[in-house]
Amino acid sequence: MTGGGEFGFIRTRLLPLTRGHRAALDLSDDAALLDPAPGCQIVVASDMLVAGVHFLETDPPEIAAERAVRSNLSDLAAMGAQPLGYLSSIAWPTGIEASWRDGFIAGLAAAQDTFGLSLLGGDTTSGPSPLTISLTMLGQVPAGTALLRRGARPDDDVWVSGTIGDAWLGLAIARGDVAHNSVLLERYRRPIPRLELGISLRGLASACLDISDGLVADAGHIAEVSGVRLELQADQIPFSPPARIWLASAPSDGLVRLVTGGDDYELLFCAPSARRALISGLGEHFDLTLTRIGTVTEGQGGALIGPNGVVLETGAGGFTHF
Amino acid sequence: MTGGGEFGFIRTRLLPLTRGHRAALDLSDDAALLDPAPGCQIVVASDMLVAGVHFLETDPPEIAAERAVRSNLSDLAAMGAQPLGYLSSIAWPTGIEASWRDGFIAGLAAAQDTFGLSLLGGDTTSGPSPLTISLTMLGQVPAGTALLRRGARPDDDVWVSGTIGDAWLGLAIARGDVAHNSVLLERYRRPIPRLELGISLRGLASACLDISDGLVADAGHIAEVSGVRLELQADQIPFSPPARIWLASAPSDGLVRLVTGGDDYELLFCAPSARRALISGLGEHFDLTLTRIGTVTEGQGGALIGPNGVVLETGAGGFTHF
Repeated sequence: MTGGGEFGFIRTRLLPLTRGHRAALDLSDDAALLDPAPGCQIVVASDMLVAGVHFLETDPPEIAAERAVRSNLSDLAAMGAQPLGYLSSIAWPTGIEASWRDGFIAGLAAAQDTFGLSLLGGDTTSGPSPLTISLTMLGQVPAGTALLRRGARPDDDVWVSGTIGDAWLGLAIARGDVAHNSVLLERYRRPIPRLELGISLRGLASACLDISDGLVADAGHIAEVSGVRLELQADQIPFSPPARIWLASAPSDGLVRLVTGGDDYELLFCAPSARRALISGLGEHFDLTLTRIGTVTEGQGGALIGPNGVVLETGAGGFTHF
Repeated sequence: MTGGGEFGFIRTRLLPLTRGHRAALDLSDDAALLDPAPGCQIVVASDMLVAGVHFLETDPPEIAAERAVRSNLSDLAAMGAQPLGYLSSIAWPTGIEASWRDGFIAGLAAAQDTFGLSLLGGDTTSGPSPLTISLTMLGQVPAGTALLRRGARPDDDVWVSGTIGDAWLGLAIARGDVAHNSVLLERYRRPIPRLELGISLRGLASACLDISDGLVADAGHIAEVSGVRLELQADQIPFSPPARIWLASAPSDGLVRLVTGGDDYELLFCAPSARRALISGLGEHFDLTLTRIGTVTEGQGGALIGPNGVVLETGAGGFTHF
């Protein structure tokens, strides 16, 4: 069920986002039509973002769009997949301003340019607020090489890319709860899907995911489906310089907040210790910090271990909104 | 960003819907992992449905779910694709009753059973009302055989499956505007995606779509992307017995309402006249009425032609909510 206004919007605003990609069929049909590479599996991730829940209602529209594309791409990075394109379904709030919609489209375009991505299809509609965005990201991976959460084995190393907690601090800045810092704010606004790293970890990592619920909660997810325990050493967790500055004067639970805050979109992965040199080499190749933060053991759960070997209390261990 | 309640819901309610399909990875990973058949293209359709816009807030939850799956399947039918499975992203209204959610899951399960379908992944979240559902349906089609909207040529016949206007009358019944009739109500509540017909029309139809905006508006869509005109003969349009009874005592614009009402999810397709016998044979094979309702001509637009050859006024010619 669509109407004249929608067709005009598709033609003038969405069609350019296809960048002429064949699979989009000029957005004139009911679906996209993709040619998978021979010998590849198709990877499909769908994410739904609701204004006020997954991004702030005060976030600029460009940022809402960038976060949607980038977090969805991060799901592909976690599987070691190469992106093929995406479909976007959007429910605009009734009476939304044209400038807001244009800003949102500009954000999609900016994210597409960064990652060489094309819009392949989707749906637009409108209804009572709030803005709701559902993106479906498609990618491919040579058959049998996808990174999954289920392969961690006792004695594997636990690794993490980049730094932890920056996006949580960035969100606090966007909310006005923490003093402005443009580096941290950017980490919230434009998370970086670790696509190249994910692709390079095929055959190296035994388990992998992207951190969205928080480092400790997501370690628990790998632990659960792999049937093991992940022990993370608190003093090994990598923090950025501005996060370290914040920690220095933070309340006593500052560290726990950073490792449970979520939305890092860094890769958390496990790998046999024999691969340490290879993985460190990858970090140097991509100029991306890869840090060994713990060990896989027999048992269950994801645990944060303090300086004296004591398990630190992290509460529910992840963002809960459900 | 997910929380404890969501994980329990995924485990107890959504995991059974995967019916053990390998591509779903037990819903433990960030994406589904599909094996396309060799030589096939992947067909991907995303639809977003908002409570109060695409279904009635008073519709039972089972019906909201059935309509979502069936209308999304209809997009695949229109392309001649065979379904592979689907991803569901759902934003539940904050404080939604557990019984409503269970009813919705039961509706997904019922639709899956009917069409032999598995849930492959997705996302669940919650937020301010209304309920918003985004389904992504995946299918496959032998490379180069997908039905598109763009191939209609002058002198092609225009065909339609089933009967037109029943779902519009069914919606009017659900709203209490028209006297109860269980056949019509069912046509609104559980539209039938014409999957077998779509697959059989590969190589026969020159253009095809599923009617969601209304017969005349959708004829206009084929006309636009094919660069032709579709002339539909009003007296050839197939109506069901209860729709004919309603028409007999309807206002003078009754016929126009039926052909512009939308949500029929019947296939509207064009084909060279040399294929008439083959297409009629398909209808007999599937025990499904296939009716020749018009002709493709030079020109543009979709037109409804009255008994004296006069073009009938159909207004905007489709449902508009945007």
